[in-house]
Amino acid sequence: MSSHPIDHIAIATPSIREAAPLFELLTGHACSPVEELPEQGVRVAFIGSLELIEPLDPGSGVARFLERQGQGLHHIAFRVPDIAAELARLEAEGFRLIDREARPGAGGHRVAFLHPKSTGGVLWELVEHPVSGPR
Amino acid sequence: MSSHPIDHIAIATPSIREAAPLFELLTGHACSPVEELPEQGVRVAFIGSLELIEPLDPGSGVARFLERQGQGLHHIAFRVPDIAAELARLEAEGFRLIDREARPGAGGHRVAFLHPKSTGGVLWELVEHPVSGPR
Repeated sequence: MSSHPIDHIAIATPSIREAAPLFELLTGHACSPVEELPEQGVRVAFIGSLELIEPLDPGSGVARFLERQGQGLHHIAFRVPDIAAELARLEAEGFRLIDREARPGAGGHRVAFLHPKSTGGVLWELVEHPVSGPR
Repeated sequence: MSSHPIDHIAIATPSIREAAPLFELLTGHACSPVEELPEQGVRVAFIGSLELIEPLDPGSGVARFLERQGQGLHHIAFRVPDIAAELARLEAEGFRLIDREARPGAGGHRVAFLHPKSTGGVLWELVEHPVSGPR
């Protein structure tokens, strides 16, 4: 199989608006516009390769993460050329899929998550970009 | 200021030997040889842009992290061209430095950490490579 580059690292935050200036200062990247993803229960923005994710409702997984751990590293995403093929490969290898099929993610990309119980304690996202090239 | 690319993402693990095959399978990258960093109290290995870090002694920060949270995302590292200049810039901006001066890290790189209390809950590492270019 081919090797996959990191697409982004996600940081859960209670407030993108309040957190963004700090990460802009640290990385030297400007924050993108905020995008709402209601079906995932979050709003997101990108600062270079960092994704800030903020819960839209207190029952979401990201809200529970924040209650448990506070703001911090939430998941890691790898870019794959064919997300359906990669999900099939990983399921055959015994990984536990949260999403059996890709769903719409930020920026019109197709995304799918693997369960951290099968990925060594790390919430793992696959991202397929509609057109290849840098974000 | 310039913007800095991600150098690596570190995953704390109780055993590199046991965790490596899982992350090789997920990423398609082979695991590097293990390197001991006694002055940091860890041994490390790289799988693509992932760094696996394993505590050498039960009193180290990584051992305490594992007791508290179990295996998972531990820190994020950004590559900077001049680590001394970047530490000076960030200190002037009010960030709390764990290392006021860079120290030797994996692969002969110079590294320094910022305290997560000042970096939004994310343990933040700066890395200067001796020669520019991909790892």
